[in-house]
Amino acid sequence: MLNVHKPCRIAGSGAHVPSAVDSATIETEHGLPAGWSLKHSGVQTRHWIESETVADLGSRAAQNALEDAGVALEDIDVLITAGGTSDQHIPSQAALTLSRIEGGDRARCQAFHVDTTCLSFITAFRLAADMLQDPEVERVLVVASEVASVGIGPANWETLTLFGDGAAAVVLEASPSGETGVVKHSHRLYTEGVRAAEIPGGCVANWVEDHAFSPEMHHFQMDGRELLRLTLKHLPEFIASFFEGTDTRWSDVAWTVPHQASKTGLGVIPKIANVAPDRVVNILETRGNCISASIPMALHHLMADDRLQSGESVLFIGTSAGYSIGALLYQHG
Amino acid sequence: MLNVHKPCRIAGSGAHVPSAVDSATIETEHGLPAGWSLKHSGVQTRHWIESETVADLGSRAAQNALEDAGVALEDIDVLITAGGTSDQHIPSQAALTLSRIEGGDRARCQAFHVDTTCLSFITAFRLAADMLQDPEVERVLVVASEVASVGIGPANWETLTLFGDGAAAVVLEASPSGETGVVKHSHRLYTEGVRAAEIPGGCVANWVEDHAFSPEMHHFQMDGRELLRLTLKHLPEFIASFFEGTDTRWSDVAWTVPHQASKTGLGVIPKIANVAPDRVVNILETRGNCISASIPMALHHLMADDRLQSGESVLFIGTSAGYSIGALLYQHG
Repeated sequence: MLNVHKPCRIAGSGAHVPSAVDSATIETEHGLPAGWSLKHSGVQTRHWIESETVADLGSRAAQNALEDAGVALEDIDVLITAGGTSDQHIPSQAALTLSRIEGGDRARCQAFHVDTTCLSFITAFRLAADMLQDPEVERVLVVASEVASVGIGPANWETLTLFGDGAAAVVLEASPSGETGVVKHSHRLYTEGVRAAEIPGGCVANWVEDHAFSPEMHHFQMDGRELLRLTLKHLPEFIASFFEGTDTRWSDVAWTVPHQASKTGLGVIPKIANVAPDRVVNILETRGNCISASIPMALHHLMADDRLQSGESVLFIGTSAGYSIGALLYQHG
Repeated sequence: MLNVHKPCRIAGSGAHVPSAVDSATIETEHGLPAGWSLKHSGVQTRHWIESETVADLGSRAAQNALEDAGVALEDIDVLITAGGTSDQHIPSQAALTLSRIEGGDRARCQAFHVDTTCLSFITAFRLAADMLQDPEVERVLVVASEVASVGIGPANWETLTLFGDGAAAVVLEASPSGETGVVKHSHRLYTEGVRAAEIPGGCVANWVEDHAFSPEMHHFQMDGRELLRLTLKHLPEFIASFFEGTDTRWSDVAWTVPHQASKTGLGVIPKIANVAPDRVVNILETRGNCISASIPMALHHLMADDRLQSGESVLFIGTSAGYSIGALLYQHG
């Protein structure tokens, strides 16, 4: 058993995705060679909204997590919505999502939105753990919901086939035992990579009144080679520093729940970590990269199958636009 | 002296605004009667960007706060950017702002963005206080930066003349004494008011590819009567519940630093709180409503004049889109 730094416990989890879109459909529509998506992006099926919103997906995932935890919305002290995409500039996504959860109009919880793009769930988990050290906070509902599909275009086959929409949520509760909770969290921002993954337009810097829709301005752009360079440059030191003082190492962690960033990224994790591939949760083929929802969707996949046992540890880890690296080591109880 | 719930201390503050725009200029340009702005919105001068960004304003405020606190960026463990406006959909505003702070490329702090619109600074202050209870976190830099001017139009004279752009930042540090810090924080979201203040377009719910710029879609809209109704309905109970267990009441708090929401809102505070008007910080006439930056700008105004004394308490309070009410009681040391 590891030394828990911030006692807390995952009491329940839930997920929700919109309609499935098969790779063959995309390949036919956009003139890609048959089989290109699975071969290059590693994705056979992803889910794309028709008319649903970030709040629609998030509220469904939240309700599933509440049910799984056996608690009601009025038992929640804090709602944290997490993610890089949102429905409106104003109000906050937390308000929009809560307004779509059944009974949200009667809720009196604190609610805020947190954004570190793909790492938003990890950041929210850490903040929830901090807040749960306050005796007045008993339960935090963390909801990561993302709609990536509106911001991708046919020009870049990789982003077109890689990204999916989806949501997942967890209920975190205070733990009196001290045997379950956050062992360590770390997040580092390397601004040399601030332009390596971005949507340049749509907000203040390139406001819509001056910049009408264009793929260059409003579709997600990433420089894959630069992101790889940044990861190779900074990940080894990040990992070494992360495990310092934890009395464990990556190869001894029971489960790795990584951001479902890409086929290449997921493929190298068992080698970097020196762990068996079946200990690295991989849902890329059926879900795609769902930005910050990927990690809790993968966690839910693990928990729904009853594979996460009491006393086992889970490493959440990923990289994000920014450029950032983040990781959180959690011991389940 | 009050009982401090979460020890921490404001070690420094800073602010930054772009060019001043006088009400007469707006009145002439948009055909408003001379003197309308000051009379109805209470604003004589607000500041609007020419080409600056949220990150530009925020990074300048951050540097001023670091200088005031006598610390360097490498002394900061966590950067929290707070606000309802941001420069880009991706990456997070935290990355964009850090990349504009001098030495940001060498910073290795954790960084994330928090949004509860006008209450974002209060939320970030509370999260910073939670994080500072962790012995590994010594200093948190909170930066609230807002560019409101791009999202307001001439159709609504009140929003046109009321809103300004600006930024303010504080350095919060761990406090060993336990005599300074957060006495209480509370935030409640009443989703019945989710449509009372909004920008409907620009993000997932009304994506720019389907909805080209239009004032109806991309300009800030507020239903002033509905916001007033919600405040009258919920504020008395919120205040009563907030001061419960604090061993104090609003009239005994040394300083009130309210959101600079509107002339009417600021005008009634001394009466509701039963405090002298000169104990309620009011910078509306020279700054306008700068969304979440208003509260820390007003705090900086108070601190720059050396009016906040050791042992005195400050109540940060406001309402926001959502509809939310939030308050944080801080004792200075």
